[in-house]
Amino acid sequence: MRLWEKGVPVHEKILAFTAGEDPALDLELIPYDCRASQAHARMLGKIGILSPSEVEALCQTLGEIQELAERGEFEISPEDEDGHTAIENYLTSKLGEIGKKIHTARSRNDQVLTALRLYYRDQLSQIEQGIRRLQTVLETFSRRHRDIPLPGYTHTRKAMPFTVDQWASAFREAFADDLTMLRAVKELVDQSPAGSGAGFGIPLEIDREMLARELHFPRLQRNPLYVQNSRGKFEATLLHGLGFVQFDLNKLASDLIFFTLPELGYFTLPETLTTGSSIMPHKKNPDALELLRAYYHRLLGLEIQVQSLSANLISGYHRDLQLTKGPVMEAFRIVEASLEVTTLIFEGLKVQEEHCRQALTPEMYATHEVYQLVARGIPFREAYRRVAEKQRRSGR
Amino acid sequence: MRLWEKGVPVHEKILAFTAGEDPALDLELIPYDCRASQAHARMLGKIGILSPSEVEALCQTLGEIQELAERGEFEISPEDEDGHTAIENYLTSKLGEIGKKIHTARSRNDQVLTALRLYYRDQLSQIEQGIRRLQTVLETFSRRHRDIPLPGYTHTRKAMPFTVDQWASAFREAFADDLTMLRAVKELVDQSPAGSGAGFGIPLEIDREMLARELHFPRLQRNPLYVQNSRGKFEATLLHGLGFVQFDLNKLASDLIFFTLPELGYFTLPETLTTGSSIMPHKKNPDALELLRAYYHRLLGLEIQVQSLSANLISGYHRDLQLTKGPVMEAFRIVEASLEVTTLIFEGLKVQEEHCRQALTPEMYATHEVYQLVARGIPFREAYRRVAEKQRRSGR
Amino acid sequence: MRLWEKGVPVHEKILAFTAGEDPALDLELIPYDCRASQAHARMLGKIGILSPSEVEALCQTLGEIQELAERGEFEISPEDEDGHTAIENYLTSKLGEIGKKIHTARSRNDQVLTALRLYYRDQLSQIEQGIRRLQTVLETFSRRHRDIPLPGYTHTRKAMPFTVDQWASAFREAFADDLTMLRAVKELVDQSPAGSGAGFGIPLEIDREMLARELHFPRLQRNPLYVQNSRGKFEATLLHGLGFVQFDLNKLASDLIFFTLPELGYFTLPETLTTGSSIMPHKKNPDALELLRAYYHRLLGLEIQVQSLSANLISGYHRDLQLTKGPVMEAFRIVEASLEVTTLIFEGLKVQEEHCRQALTPEMYATHEVYQLVARGIPFREAYRRVAEKQRRSGR
Amino acid sequence: MRLWEKGVPVHEKILAFTAGEDPALDLELIPYDCRASQAHARMLGKIGILSPSEVEALCQTLGEIQELAERGEFEISPEDEDGHTAIENYLTSKLGEIGKKIHTARSRNDQVLTALRLYYRDQLSQIEQGIRRLQTVLETFSRRHRDIPLPGYTHTRKAMPFTVDQWASAFREAFADDLTMLRAVKELVDQSPAGSGAGFGIPLEIDREMLARELHFPRLQRNPLYVQNSRGKFEATLLHGLGFVQFDLNKLASDLIFFTLPELGYFTLPETLTTGSSIMPHKKNPDALELLRAYYHRLLGLEIQVQSLSANLISGYHRDLQLTKGPVMEAFRIVEASLEVTTLIFEGLKVQEEHCRQALTPEMYATHEVYQLVARGIPFREAYRRVAEKQRRSGR
Repeated sequence: MRLWEKGVPVHEKILAFTAGEDPALDLELIPYDCRASQAHARMLGKIGILSPSEVEALCQTLGEIQELAERGEFEISPEDEDGHTAIENYLTSKLGEIGKKIHTARSRNDQVLTALRLYYRDQLSQIEQGIRRLQTVLETFSRRHRDIPLPGYTHTRKAMPFTVDQWASAFREAFADDLTMLRAVKELVDQSPAGSGAGFGIPLEIDREMLARELHFPRLQRNPLYVQNSRGKFEATLLHGLGFVQFDLNKLASDLIFFTLPELGYFTLPETLTTGSSIMPHKKNPDALELLRAYYHRLLGLEIQVQSLSANLISGYHRDLQLTKGPVMEAFRIVEASLEVTTLIFEGLKVQEEHCRQALTPEMYATHEVYQLVARGIPFREAYRRVAEKQRRSGR
Repeated sequence: MRLWEKGVPVHEKILAFTAGEDPALDLELIPYDCRASQAHARMLGKIGILSPSEVEALCQTLGEIQELAERGEFEISPEDEDGHTAIENYLTSKLGEIGKKIHTARSRNDQVLTALRLYYRDQLSQIEQGIRRLQTVLETFSRRHRDIPLPGYTHTRKAMPFTVDQWASAFREAFADDLTMLRAVKELVDQSPAGSGAGFGIPLEIDREMLARELHFPRLQRNPLYVQNSRGKFEATLLHGLGFVQFDLNKLASDLIFFTLPELGYFTLPETLTTGSSIMPHKKNPDALELLRAYYHRLLGLEIQVQSLSANLISGYHRDLQLTKGPVMEAFRIVEASLEVTTLIFEGLKVQEEHCRQALTPEMYATHEVYQLVARGIPFREAYRRVAEKQRRSGR
Repeated sequence: MRLWEKGVPVHEKILAFTAGEDPALDLELIPYDCRASQAHARMLGKIGILSPSEVEALCQTLGEIQELAERGEFEISPEDEDGHTAIENYLTSKLGEIGKKIHTARSRNDQVLTALRLYYRDQLSQIEQGIRRLQTVLETFSRRHRDIPLPGYTHTRKAMPFTVDQWASAFREAFADDLTMLRAVKELVDQSPAGSGAGFGIPLEIDREMLARELHFPRLQRNPLYVQNSRGKFEATLLHGLGFVQFDLNKLASDLIFFTLPELGYFTLPETLTTGSSIMPHKKNPDALELLRAYYHRLLGLEIQVQSLSANLISGYHRDLQLTKGPVMEAFRIVEASLEVTTLIFEGLKVQEEHCRQALTPEMYATHEVYQLVARGIPFREAYRRVAEKQRRSGR
Repeated sequence: MRLWEKGVPVHEKILAFTAGEDPALDLELIPYDCRASQAHARMLGKIGILSPSEVEALCQTLGEIQELAERGEFEISPEDEDGHTAIENYLTSKLGEIGKKIHTARSRNDQVLTALRLYYRDQLSQIEQGIRRLQTVLETFSRRHRDIPLPGYTHTRKAMPFTVDQWASAFREAFADDLTMLRAVKELVDQSPAGSGAGFGIPLEIDREMLARELHFPRLQRNPLYVQNSRGKFEATLLHGLGFVQFDLNKLASDLIFFTLPELGYFTLPETLTTGSSIMPHKKNPDALELLRAYYHRLLGLEIQVQSLSANLISGYHRDLQLTKGPVMEAFRIVEASLEVTTLIFEGLKVQEEHCRQALTPEMYATHEVYQLVARGIPFREAYRRVAEKQRRSGR
């Protein structure tokens, strides 16, 4: 039974259209809603809406649901519309009247947001750990290839000498910035929406500070309307932060596709990390790298979708915002898998030192020549022109 | 067994990462690949690669697979990697040596594209039918509400008098344009890629015209490299054409959300088409309309994703392009469901004639007043200023 | 003086903010508005609003403005707000009362659209010509390099042998598709909005067919509300069609950046088409190619902007739609310049036949080997595995 | 003369295409480059490349350029290609040999980034100030309208009672979050790129810490390749941060367009802040609000452009990245103007208390009724159903 049912049957196709992908997506959110609902029950106990035994019954049954969900055994039927409804229906079927009290002093609007934000926090931690694991592998890689030369490129043209460890360090510094950005995103998003109701507060004296404390939110999002108005805004920022990470993976993958080009041969991928062609028996293709590159664009599409659909809407909740849920969940999955695969690739990547050394052809030292002239007192621009002229005459 | 397996085991996580959502998505494509593979077998028969009995065996078994797929009983196991592999593996398990011949003179690259384009053609027909059904309902709606006045708005402010049937006709003309656009998209996309191999042709004398004919493609996409290069390009255009339709649904939904605003009350939605609130018992919310509006933005996100990921790649296939499949398939589902729901809404929509009439307040006739002065010989701009001055004095 | 001024001064900053970039952009639109206004005057003559001498006076003065504009001498002052106002003000200052009549039976809304659509038609012709010029140069290039081999790549890895002229032909076929798409876009967009007023018609008996005929629009956009509702929609489609062309230029540029990589050396760019580095005297960078590639993304940004801002708005004009003008105008400029530069590049591009031939290394013929086995009766998949095994043993 | 000229003339159209909009955009960057170049000269003095008198001459002439630029009198000719070249050429024309030394130990790549980041820092401060000014006006507005009721909406339908000051407070909290986000963006972007050369360091012992200190960068961006790789990434984040602000302005504008709808009449805009129609004399249109709303979408378009063009590129500078400059500069202008106009609007906005009060119709208290039953011990869901049933019977 839907939370808002009042006796008038709603058209089946409208129900299916509005439920959309929620029953599937919400399976992952059940444990977070259970934790939030337990805190809510305790708060209702504190303000005298529930008796201690009611609180205990609810918390225990919510714990059961959480366990079922973690074992993959909790079901959200189409009639439940979404996971939040499924939880209330389960509580009512088990506890009768007590179950009908759990929704006191909240709205599905703040209930959804509370569960989502707990989920966001958890997922952000996962991503952070994934980055740290990759950082460690990159560090080992750097250490192992210290001082092996690598041609530096600008405009996809050889530019100046560089080294393999400096190249890898560029990404370590990039990921460090990503961690900074993700921390900023987390700081923003980790505000407690609990107790803000449908966007206009609750006509009861509730204890929002307690809810925030119980759920370890470092901050309370005070204005109940802003809680709703920040939906879409916060999700866009999550997607931006995740896209930030995938941007670096996109560049890393682009580099590796290029550096493992057999014609250059600076690096090689072990065959266990490549795939083949259905028609050309000789092919060893870097499909995993190509997908790492491509998933960045999926993230862009998810970000723009959320940014665009949240706009041109007046304050307060709109059902449009429901469509922000899927994109964020998909993005977390993509970035997590991408970090894992990248870590795996760095564990297997081989550096072909000989090829790297041979690639440092003489013209790459043109800038060094300029600076030898500068050291002899020739103004930079003059020195530049002399070396350029010499290069031109030598036909390079 | 993967089509390209050569005895070196590939890392399990790489396999999972590269297979991605293909095993799930491809279930819908199996019947199209079967049809394409049957045509391919017949062509191989014609050029003497297969004997008549081999052709027959293959065609019959492909027919079996098609039936299994349509009954939802064909399975793509993770080991199959994708649907195309599952089909070849099924053929080989049933027909032995004969099955190993089906991939002669093709590559998975052109196989995938052939199946997809047959699917696109079918889906475009579905969308066209959905639009036509909506057009019919709109026409009935127009006829039923002929000459009922409706305030015309610009800048979300009352502008000039209009009528309900003229309002509905605006959308009928819009959808007629959409059909024109979809026909153009179809003309473009409905080119035969069959027989182009991996993008560089097949080192055998094959009959691409026969393949095109058998599969009812009106045109052959000649250059095999362009077949590959058009991946992403054609998909972006499909998404654009679908977005075109959803754009009109977005506006229609925006109008209906506004016109059914109780404060205006021009139209009402029957309660069977609205949903409620978990906390506010009085609410009748237009969730279906809001989702119709919001799905436009999902389409935008899908289009930009495909447009962005296909760029900055040299000619020829890249695994990145695999990620164009999901977005197009999702877009077809969205637009089809959206057209169906919109049709349903128009069947239930009520026009509140009294409210509409009352809304035609006197200031809406200001332009008519101007033209009465123009009719008396006063230059337009002068007439405009006189009416404006009169309006100002009357404090409107 | 603004067309809608009624004696109440509007805040200067609001005027500047709302005028935005219009005074600058509209300079290019003046000639189109003049042509449309001449047709409008003739139509007003026909229906008896203007006398023959008034029509003549207006048409002549509009002709003057057009000439001034084409010589770059027509000015749009900030007080004029936009070009359409500047034209009416000029007419009134020259012709007094007659000038005040020109706006009879039209609104700035349909006036703007009429001028824009005439401009779109002209610009689309320019783009078509640019494509045709490029096609001609590509054809010459193909003819000149017939049968010169070129390695075909998939996954940025050597795949199968190909030829330079087949490579160039892939783009000729691509541009032919682009012309098809642009024709479809033109067919859609080339509908007459003239006489539709502010979206609700004009309370006068006017002759919209005559307007359409005079301005060579093949079709009338009938429903006046749809005229307004199609703003943004048509512009998005124009941008999509233009992006379609730039997509092919993006791929062409990506290929050329790769094929001119000195490590491969298949093609070379003459030094007159490259630029250098401020610090590295040896560099010859393909900046023009990189910008060709990058401008595709600017087009994406413009398209998504127009698609996103036009959504979630009820029917009828909104000032938001004003921001669709700049993007389309910028896109036309970009694609035109890009086509010109690409043509120039193909005129100078050198093919290094020797490097191309050397690049056709033996493993690229693996598929041919497979087909030699197939010719001897070995099933394809079996033949594939034998060649793969042979390749593996030889350590390739 | 271009910095990289070596005696081979480059085709004029290539020069125009590659220079693009730089000569125009760079006018705004000249003062920042001058400050950076002064610091660079002092650093070169410290490490012994320049004598004290050379440092002084350079710094003084750079000061002159800065003053010229601030008076709008510094010119960038097409031959200069960009502002950085114009500065070096000016120095050389004034100081001869000394001018030719300024480019020692730097590349245009790090020079451009250094100037841009100083500019970003300045602009971010401007935006922060704009937000603070708006916050102050919002606070006054809140104080002035304390406790005036306002209907709260969800799904664009009346939901629960709210107040005008709570509504305004929602935006104050939103802007406070924006300031937090902008601080995070600034922290990220405010890293010193100076001295990183073309991405591979400088073959000279230079003092990057001194450069950072002199230019008040709190942090050094250490890895020179990452300096280049972060181009596009940092710009995307700036655009995201700016889009964050404009998102709130979009919602504010959407609210105001709705709340000033004459049919609701909760708020009114003074006529000095509205514009009119060229055909309908009675219209008072909220054009400024509509543009505030629409500019959000321009920002989206700019962000996606930068995100998309920076991808699929290997490490190191590419000319593509040049196209990130215009979007960021345009975004700063848009957000600054938008904040200013919003501040102006709040100074003039009138609240129509009587209309607000009348709008609090009885059904809006349905949730309160539910809680009265809850207070009497009826479980929430039961109470909800009773009130819903009562509402239904009363025909609301």
